[in-house]
Amino acid sequence: MLKRREIDFQIFEMLEAERLCAQPAFLSQDRETIDAILDSAQRVADETFATHTALTDAEEPQFVDGRVRMRPEVKSALNAFVDGGFMGTSFPERIGGLQLPYIISQVINWIFSDANVGTAGYPFLTMAAANLIQAHGSDEQKQRYMLPLIEGRWFGTMCLSEPQAGSSLADIRTRAEPTGEGDYRISGTKMWISGGEHELSENIVHLVLAKVPGQAAGTRGISLFIVPKYRLDEHGAPGPRNDVSLAGLNHKMGYRGTVNTLLNFGENDDCRGYLIGQLNQGLAAMFHMMNEARIGVGLNAAVLAYSGYQHSLDYARNRPQGRPATQRDPSAPQSMIIEHADVRHMLMRQKVYSEGALALCLYGASLVDRKQLSASDEQAAEIELELSILTPLIKAWSSHYGLKANYWGLQILGGYGYTRDYPLERIYRDNRLNPIHEGTNGIQSLDLLGRKVLQNQGAAFRLLMTRIGETVSACTGHPVLGEYASQLHQAQMRVLEVTTALGKLASGGGIASLLANSWTYLDMLGHLVVAWMWLRQAVVAQVALDQPGGDQAYYDGKRQACAYFYRWELPQVLMQADQLLAMDDSVLTLRDEHF
Amino acid sequence: MLKRREIDFQIFEMLEAERLCAQPAFLSQDRETIDAILDSAQRVADETFATHTALTDAEEPQFVDGRVRMRPEVKSALNAFVDGGFMGTSFPERIGGLQLPYIISQVINWIFSDANVGTAGYPFLTMAAANLIQAHGSDEQKQRYMLPLIEGRWFGTMCLSEPQAGSSLADIRTRAEPTGEGDYRISGTKMWISGGEHELSENIVHLVLAKVPGQAAGTRGISLFIVPKYRLDEHGAPGPRNDVSLAGLNHKMGYRGTVNTLLNFGENDDCRGYLIGQLNQGLAAMFHMMNEARIGVGLNAAVLAYSGYQHSLDYARNRPQGRPATQRDPSAPQSMIIEHADVRHMLMRQKVYSEGALALCLYGASLVDRKQLSASDEQAAEIELELSILTPLIKAWSSHYGLKANYWGLQILGGYGYTRDYPLERIYRDNRLNPIHEGTNGIQSLDLLGRKVLQNQGAAFRLLMTRIGETVSACTGHPVLGEYASQLHQAQMRVLEVTTALGKLASGGGIASLLANSWTYLDMLGHLVVAWMWLRQAVVAQVALDQPGGDQAYYDGKRQACAYFYRWELPQVLMQADQLLAMDDSVLTLRDEHF
Repeated sequence: MLKRREIDFQIFEMLEAERLCAQPAFLSQDRETIDAILDSAQRVADETFATHTALTDAEEPQFVDGRVRMRPEVKSALNAFVDGGFMGTSFPERIGGLQLPYIISQVINWIFSDANVGTAGYPFLTMAAANLIQAHGSDEQKQRYMLPLIEGRWFGTMCLSEPQAGSSLADIRTRAEPTGEGDYRISGTKMWISGGEHELSENIVHLVLAKVPGQAAGTRGISLFIVPKYRLDEHGAPGPRNDVSLAGLNHKMGYRGTVNTLLNFGENDDCRGYLIGQLNQGLAAMFHMMNEARIGVGLNAAVLAYSGYQHSLDYARNRPQGRPATQRDPSAPQSMIIEHADVRHMLMRQKVYSEGALALCLYGASLVDRKQLSASDEQAAEIELELSILTPLIKAWSSHYGLKANYWGLQILGGYGYTRDYPLERIYRDNRLNPIHEGTNGIQSLDLLGRKVLQNQGAAFRLLMTRIGETVSACTGHPVLGEYASQLHQAQMRVLEVTTALGKLASGGGIASLLANSWTYLDMLGHLVVAWMWLRQAVVAQVALDQPGGDQAYYDGKRQACAYFYRWELPQVLMQADQLLAMDDSVLTLRDEHF
Repeated sequence: MLKRREIDFQIFEMLEAERLCAQPAFLSQDRETIDAILDSAQRVADETFATHTALTDAEEPQFVDGRVRMRPEVKSALNAFVDGGFMGTSFPERIGGLQLPYIISQVINWIFSDANVGTAGYPFLTMAAANLIQAHGSDEQKQRYMLPLIEGRWFGTMCLSEPQAGSSLADIRTRAEPTGEGDYRISGTKMWISGGEHELSENIVHLVLAKVPGQAAGTRGISLFIVPKYRLDEHGAPGPRNDVSLAGLNHKMGYRGTVNTLLNFGENDDCRGYLIGQLNQGLAAMFHMMNEARIGVGLNAAVLAYSGYQHSLDYARNRPQGRPATQRDPSAPQSMIIEHADVRHMLMRQKVYSEGALALCLYGASLVDRKQLSASDEQAAEIELELSILTPLIKAWSSHYGLKANYWGLQILGGYGYTRDYPLERIYRDNRLNPIHEGTNGIQSLDLLGRKVLQNQGAAFRLLMTRIGETVSACTGHPVLGEYASQLHQAQMRVLEVTTALGKLASGGGIASLLANSWTYLDMLGHLVVAWMWLRQAVVAQVALDQPGGDQAYYDGKRQACAYFYRWELPQVLMQADQLLAMDDSVLTLRDEHF
């Protein structure tokens, strides 16, 4: 359930998408054109995606005779998606794209994922694969492999993990032996491959991490290969099967519409792959795309959080149950449960988590656009720096708190929420994936504290603090917002203190102690950043409220939600700062038998 | 996965079960006898319950031609349960029970629920029904209905909710019209009835809340009826079908082994029911059993939390992935993930939540026994007072934090945790029920703050504070435990301050404002009480550590977990106390359009 009002607020009011779209780098787009594209996306999503969400959850893809059998509605929906021109939204017009800003493509993602997150998985994986080839492929590779992806004729996958190597990609075992004919013979097993096998498209382009024998151990010996399901003939048409076979399907708690596979490469020693980018630069190429993939995961988590919020809000407005505590007459009519204080808390928690996460993820997406538009290398580097520290927060905070939002949404529906008759049950299962994939939240916390915060003498962290400080300064002394600015500043000073202390620990060589409580650090910094996002939303709301005219209730709701976040959530930052400042690393000295 | 060591600690070391079992009120039981009973329960659970847990989750009960079809393994397991003598564990010997203390019956519940929480649902509902008849039924009703339940020939249900009346029982519509022949004609629809229809037993005894026409509106006009599936002949044998029909099954996220039904009573105007207890005292009779039912839900949540902890611990000990942050050589062997600090945090959170909840629930169970053994009415009343305030905490804290424990357990397994190949996925879905049923956690928070804390001039709250104070006093000045005692005391003083302030609000008539933040109050008080439980555990561990001999690692683990709770969890009490002292009730003034 999607409220278009919220999309408009997030992109046009918060991120000035209209001005962004008018930049020459994009096809000249006015508000009307963007609105028409979003209307069209919503229509396709409503008519073809939302109609089979429960169905493909109940009847997940099956492994039959080495092939994947799935509901036919998935293919019909994806055909409509491709026909609607949504596959290439952010790609240049000259290669068949719509040349829209990245944030608009993310809003389209929002619309389709809200309707059916399982079916939406295929095109978004395909776009990620096309993006990677665009960034690192040769001209020939772009011509032969990227264009059919953007045209939606072929679909793509990312093959990173293996059964024994998930978080630790250094330990992958898939091999790529040069054939002497310019290509490579691939052999190995890849795990958790979404969209790894299906009959939804004419071909599947796997992007596969593998090691060429004789190169360095660990991550510095990893290269990236294009491995098509069907090899191409000289005209680029799919020819004979490549030696990639489906070894099994993973049966997941949720996201069941997206088939998830175990793939064997080269069982018959005849799997051909084509190096993309430089030898041994495979992980770097893959991580180049990781920012965007992680924005995508964060956004999906935020979208599911917001969907759950809207569904539970609808239920709360229409379910009569109980009476106010002051109503002693049992024959009085029952209240709608939205009247109960505890239900309102559950709604507000969902609102501050989901709209806070949406604001954060879309802010991150806007940095991708601003980087593209930047006037100088220095400016681009600065934007990249800001995005680099926000990325683990976008991924991990949104998925951790997005799931909490769904917990409260389901709780509002009570027993009904626990049944498959209402969508909260499915949304809750779907969203449980997001803290896990694209790097678990624990891995994100190591990335944040071990790399992003401390590297370059803390440059990214300082930049983030400057950005938050700018919003604080702009609000200081304001009759309504000044109070929040002051609270945010206070929390920011505590976070700075913690980070400085941890920096000293790091320079003293205490890397293990530094990282001992990395999740708490991410949780703290994420809450600070989302408090900043809420103040940014309140600023925009306040400007609107100061003008006469309609929609006051919507903006007042934003201001109320900001107040709620500062009252009930921000204190966690101070508490966690105290905990971290204690510099306790006793978790390191626990022994196995203590558990 | 159950560690017998933990059972022994919780009941023999924490609650002195051996001394309890030796009381004349129980069949004279020594440690060896209890051990043999628990061994036997574990064997039956392993051999017949644990063997079909995944199966009945995958193939949930089906509605076929008005009947329930389910896997045959359920019936075999329940036969073994009954044959093992586990149905009547806490009932007197003279009526076929084992006459064991309530805590021992709860440990047997633990063993079977750990093995298969879905199949374990049937006997525990049956025991609850037998309990209710024992407490409120006539001698004839006990003879005709209770004995077959204790013998395990018939099964029981509790029929409270209706589609339009879940949390608000005042609004039930099921009617009971006197027939003039001493019984009643029942008509209405009951929702969420676990075990409402099946062919596992010769008969089903429904205990049904209904309203006799002409009586008071609301809860004061509710009576309780025995409604058998098959009416009894003069010898008490099941005769013709009563007019109770299965209208449908609920399809749930988890707990799928327990069939959950929608039942129609009196569709053909021929459903006979028999009043149990006094007219219009139905809700009181039902609530009489509620303490125990809520201990049961809390314990199930704690059991699932502990199961998930043990499974993820096992995985963490055996899964190699990654290397220490200080290890730069990628060809060095990978570490087991239990070596990683972030994984240890996830394990410790599970340990403190699950073992804290187990300690709390079993402490509550021990009060049931102590009440039965009490030497005077005053003593019994005092124990009842303590149990009354702990009950909503047992139910709501254990289910809220038990599910959090499962969240972290699943996270340790990463992608594997999200699949149905490992039990965490199922446990996480199963445990999502516990914050909902037997009164949602929101309802528990209203019960806690609106009734238990404030009624009788705060007598129950003061008693709880006294109990906590006793543990604090006993530890004050101790070289190891003194520090925790001091922190607990400090937190207790803040909770007292909050409660006093809320009491003033209540006496000023501000009932709506008082209840505005009831969940935060429950969360705060629950954390305080579990901190107390952890200090109690640390005390027992310290005594053992002060003596020479084996098992030092186990006790040291308890002490480490206590330290962990005080470092990472207790500060939440202080934060929430600050939030509550702000006496903010702005959630009440939100308008519908703000959401």
